[in-house]
Amino acid sequence: MTTHRLEPLLNPASIAIVGASSNPARIGGMPLAHLTRFGYAGRIYPINPKYEEVFGLRCWRDIEALPAAPDLAVLAIAAQDVLPMLRRCAAKGVRAAIVYAAGFAEAGAQGAALQAELEAFVAGTDMVVAGPNAMGFANLNSQAHTSFASVFNTAPMQQGPGSVSLLTQSGNVCAAVYAIARRLGVDFSHFINTGNEACVDFAQYLEYLAQDAATQVCVGYMEELRDGPRFIAAAEEFARRDKLLVLYKAGETDKGAQAVRSHTSALAGDQAIYRAAFRQLDIIQSHDFVQMAQLAHLAGYRHRRAGRRVAIITISGALGAILADKFIGAGLDVPTLPQALQDQLRAGIPDYGMVSNPVDVTGNVVNDPGFVRTAMQALAQSDAVDTVLVYAPGYLLDRMADDLCAVSRQYPKLFVAIDTGAATAREQLRAGGVPVFEDIGVATSALAPFLLWQERRRRNRWMAVRRQSAPARAALPDSLDEYRTKRLLAQHGVPAAPERVAATADEAAAAADAIGYPVVIKVLSPDIAHKTEAGGVRLRLADAAQVRQAFGEVLASCRRHDPRARIEGILVCRMESGVAELIVGATRDPVFGMTLTVGLGGVLTELYQDVSHRVLPVDEAMAREMLGELKAFPLLAGYRGRPPGDVDAACAAIAAFSRAVLALGDQVAEVEVNPLLVKEAGQGACMLDALAIPSGQ
Amino acid sequence: MTTHRLEPLLNPASIAIVGASSNPARIGGMPLAHLTRFGYAGRIYPINPKYEEVFGLRCWRDIEALPAAPDLAVLAIAAQDVLPMLRRCAAKGVRAAIVYAAGFAEAGAQGAALQAELEAFVAGTDMVVAGPNAMGFANLNSQAHTSFASVFNTAPMQQGPGSVSLLTQSGNVCAAVYAIARRLGVDFSHFINTGNEACVDFAQYLEYLAQDAATQVCVGYMEELRDGPRFIAAAEEFARRDKLLVLYKAGETDKGAQAVRSHTSALAGDQAIYRAAFRQLDIIQSHDFVQMAQLAHLAGYRHRRAGRRVAIITISGALGAILADKFIGAGLDVPTLPQALQDQLRAGIPDYGMVSNPVDVTGNVVNDPGFVRTAMQALAQSDAVDTVLVYAPGYLLDRMADDLCAVSRQYPKLFVAIDTGAATAREQLRAGGVPVFEDIGVATSALAPFLLWQERRRRNRWMAVRRQSAPARAALPDSLDEYRTKRLLAQHGVPAAPERVAATADEAAAAADAIGYPVVIKVLSPDIAHKTEAGGVRLRLADAAQVRQAFGEVLASCRRHDPRARIEGILVCRMESGVAELIVGATRDPVFGMTLTVGLGGVLTELYQDVSHRVLPVDEAMAREMLGELKAFPLLAGYRGRPPGDVDAACAAIAAFSRAVLALGDQVAEVEVNPLLVKEAGQGACMLDALAIPSGQ
Repeated sequence: MTTHRLEPLLNPASIAIVGASSNPARIGGMPLAHLTRFGYAGRIYPINPKYEEVFGLRCWRDIEALPAAPDLAVLAIAAQDVLPMLRRCAAKGVRAAIVYAAGFAEAGAQGAALQAELEAFVAGTDMVVAGPNAMGFANLNSQAHTSFASVFNTAPMQQGPGSVSLLTQSGNVCAAVYAIARRLGVDFSHFINTGNEACVDFAQYLEYLAQDAATQVCVGYMEELRDGPRFIAAAEEFARRDKLLVLYKAGETDKGAQAVRSHTSALAGDQAIYRAAFRQLDIIQSHDFVQMAQLAHLAGYRHRRAGRRVAIITISGALGAILADKFIGAGLDVPTLPQALQDQLRAGIPDYGMVSNPVDVTGNVVNDPGFVRTAMQALAQSDAVDTVLVYAPGYLLDRMADDLCAVSRQYPKLFVAIDTGAATAREQLRAGGVPVFEDIGVATSALAPFLLWQERRRRNRWMAVRRQSAPARAALPDSLDEYRTKRLLAQHGVPAAPERVAATADEAAAAADAIGYPVVIKVLSPDIAHKTEAGGVRLRLADAAQVRQAFGEVLASCRRHDPRARIEGILVCRMESGVAELIVGATRDPVFGMTLTVGLGGVLTELYQDVSHRVLPVDEAMAREMLGELKAFPLLAGYRGRPPGDVDAACAAIAAFSRAVLALGDQVAEVEVNPLLVKEAGQGACMLDALAIPSGQ
Repeated sequence: MTTHRLEPLLNPASIAIVGASSNPARIGGMPLAHLTRFGYAGRIYPINPKYEEVFGLRCWRDIEALPAAPDLAVLAIAAQDVLPMLRRCAAKGVRAAIVYAAGFAEAGAQGAALQAELEAFVAGTDMVVAGPNAMGFANLNSQAHTSFASVFNTAPMQQGPGSVSLLTQSGNVCAAVYAIARRLGVDFSHFINTGNEACVDFAQYLEYLAQDAATQVCVGYMEELRDGPRFIAAAEEFARRDKLLVLYKAGETDKGAQAVRSHTSALAGDQAIYRAAFRQLDIIQSHDFVQMAQLAHLAGYRHRRAGRRVAIITISGALGAILADKFIGAGLDVPTLPQALQDQLRAGIPDYGMVSNPVDVTGNVVNDPGFVRTAMQALAQSDAVDTVLVYAPGYLLDRMADDLCAVSRQYPKLFVAIDTGAATAREQLRAGGVPVFEDIGVATSALAPFLLWQERRRRNRWMAVRRQSAPARAALPDSLDEYRTKRLLAQHGVPAAPERVAATADEAAAAADAIGYPVVIKVLSPDIAHKTEAGGVRLRLADAAQVRQAFGEVLASCRRHDPRARIEGILVCRMESGVAELIVGATRDPVFGMTLTVGLGGVLTELYQDVSHRVLPVDEAMAREMLGELKAFPLLAGYRGRPPGDVDAACAAIAAFSRAVLALGDQVAEVEVNPLLVKEAGQGACMLDALAIPSGQ
């Protein structure tokens, strides 16, 4: 196994601090204070011609004077001095550098030029350079501290090895999450903030953490991704290695699409695409620092068996109901327990207690330790629940702690406790495999995504679909009118209704005779975007005479509408009817590439934003999941006596659309079928209109 | 001023504990332990023939032996002994009692009978009886502890007077919220849990707290309300006295309506009505214990000037953006600061900082205390923001603390701090009028409702509308067919289109001639609920001949559909068209009485639950607010080139509908206009169909 190229940056065997200071409050002094205080075992080379010694270490005059090239040089110097120093580091053979200085790309044109110069220089070397405008790192397992983060002075230092890595695009966020998580007792592996990402970007750090043996969990914060494919690959590696990835994506409100060319563009906000991609990659998306810290904590229990079906055991009916409400609201299940299990529980629970789930064992029962253990064992063995949650405040939890720990040792199922009081047994429980929360809201917010992740992982559909062979590249016709776009999509299996292009009224009538009545005719013109407004559409034509007459009227109307419009013909289509109309569209996301949006057609869909998104490829099973996410899905499934639609055919059409779009590759910017008509169950689906916008238009 | 009848229960001058125990872990010992330990100044009478003395107090043989009648008797005895003891208490002249015992209404038919007996007895006395199945109370100002809540043994006891009262329908919830709030330093006035509410219900306690001088804030938890009007009156008294009321209503998911008779029934879930009523009464609704505790804490700062427009001051661009995102997501505003204010700030903030809002003062600035104070003063004086939030972790906040406190003393505007580090100045700031949060999520969840409440209170629209005189009672016609229902509503000002009832084809043709074409005809029958399905509706009739023909066809079709249907005539209406169709309906909520639901008509409205609710009465301004809450409101306001609707007319129609429903009073169970057609701006609105269901049907 080769060493990852970021190894000297994140796990250096020797560190030089250029611009060393003896003042632990200064950025040139703080990393030295941390390194010496926390016992870094590698060599440390402070560099500053003003000092002979700092923090009890020999201080060197300059980088050239060092007896050997250090793995890593930390540059605690001003922006304008950075590039000359990097040159000297490279000459010395330094493998990696961290640039603290601000004043680069974030600081106007001059700074951007300085950063471009830095990037150009680094590209010509073997050096790995972090930052600029970064706070530096900490490897909490080797105590390689290369940051000027004061949080290490105030947060309690961990006593043993850690397996949680922090990766953020903001130094202050890194410090804030670290402080919260340390208060919860989370032990860390890496503390990483990426700064301006001039030479090493978020995805590269993530790639490092995916293969890093010490890292089992990554908790991250990002504002924007530069390298989508690399990010996807790193996230897949996390999933493959059964590591948990929790990410906070800044910007919870969608930016307005810059230029809305298709309906799909208006529906596909960038935040929605991030949400979809995270879900497809089994990444837990967080919007809260405490939740992130709690998830990092919970991840320590991820090897226990757990899932969405929760048994709630309380000493209070009200709190049982509150917990059930919150868990169900967060997407978990609180199933009624099987009768046999209820009978087992009833044996020890008085009549005024409850045994169905939530289970109210009543306050008295905790005085009967034999029963508590028997009840917990019965729940541990039951196939009807995946996770057992115990709510008992303070001394009541203390009385149950031994039994909980014993059962948790005996069975692989996850037991979780909530104590809103002041139980003294919390640490005993945590060490015994039972995480303890102090608050119901926090518990719900961390448990729900964690338990759903537990269920989802190892059977990720998208990663399987991605491994299938890509469709062969399809050629793009010169003109992408509606007819040609539909033909192109139909070649990949998107169902089309019978239709023909006619140049004359006679051809149109003949086409209609062949297709069968009633028919629709539509103008085909690259210059007429809104056909209906131009009078370019005629519906429900019942015979050849009507077709002939409508042909003339459509041409006349379109010529009046735009005398210069090029008219390529008239499209004659069978008049189809069905149960519902979908919009199925693909747009190119700058980070994740081609993404799919599915919704019910119409103006309300846009107002309600009732759409589902995925990054391509999407197969039929994923398409079904997308349709199921729509609030309007009941309309497809047969709502209030309406006939159900052909959902199977719609899913097949969406999967075929995905293949078609991937086959077109970078030739198109957007592709949209709007509407895709879904007919009654068993009768299929078909495109009624389609649009493709080539790239660069 | 007379004393409230709950005074001896909640602020007793003397307390007897019937069933006293010397064991502080038993329910008969715990209140005595609390009373003696926390220094209750009133007389305490332990009663138990087994003891001479408990907790250093003389123990009395029985209630009859007491030298005087105590204000309050706490009954720590079994359910079957309660009623005999209450009789003896009444005979002694005891004014109030608390019943701990379970085994009443919550415990099957036998318990229910026992409770009914208790209620009947108490109704014939002057005694006030709390519970049964209650944990007891605590008055934290007088230290009158009458509960067996162990939380007082573990939570730190407050040092001075408190002004926050806890009122819950669950003893365990009372204890859990108390523990959380005490950790935040909230000082309490009353600790109340209501138990089975046999004789005193939630609304009566709330009424007590509204007039209680010690109580400035009530934080409550409820499962169901028994007395809606009393609750409304108490909540109004809270608002009138400028006290804050925060309530958690259990059951976050709506129960399915038992019998769906109108569309409105399907749209008006009970939780939605609670949400609407709370909002109309300026009650902050909470779903989280920590948020409740934080709001109780924040309420201590409610006399400072504050509102929704927040200036965010940070030392980190990333955290400024995160805060702005969260605040805007929670309904607050983060307005761009006026240029003059930006210029003032820029004078002390380096180029790489930000001055627009969020303001990034950068880490360096905190070293310049003169500037910090100047900047804070400028923000305190600005009319462009209502509230100033400072995010600075740990030592950075410490450096700003003196300035923050000084400015906070100088100006009435609310300053709030968030410290995700470990600032030592937290208590200094809190004492100086600056609340400090430790977490961004918690801060947002408490600040947003608090600041919005600050803005809303003192200009409550509903309470003003309620004070207006009620409309005169309207008589209900014998038969409530569509025509008569519309006439009834029209009498109160709900706009109707011209329409007439016709008994013959000739009458119908004459009516249509008078109304003007095109017209619609509809069957009028109390037996045909779904007119369209019965063939009982014909649209777009253009002349008298068509009307005559349609008249015969409608009758024939309806007779085929249901030969026994009573047909009262044919309604001839003008065929109207407009911009959008609303559903406007009233249903009777068992707690809050007649409530109004407004939404856009159609099947999607039901799927998306895009509706707004209010408890009646509703005036035009409230109607406008309701329409504005609809996600589909843009359709009314002129969406994507559509003509805007006559929103004014729609609001007037809704207010008239409210008056009509109130005039009908308890004669109707449901009234619905579906649809109310909204025409283009300036052209009005009108009922297209209406339905009224008399009470008891």
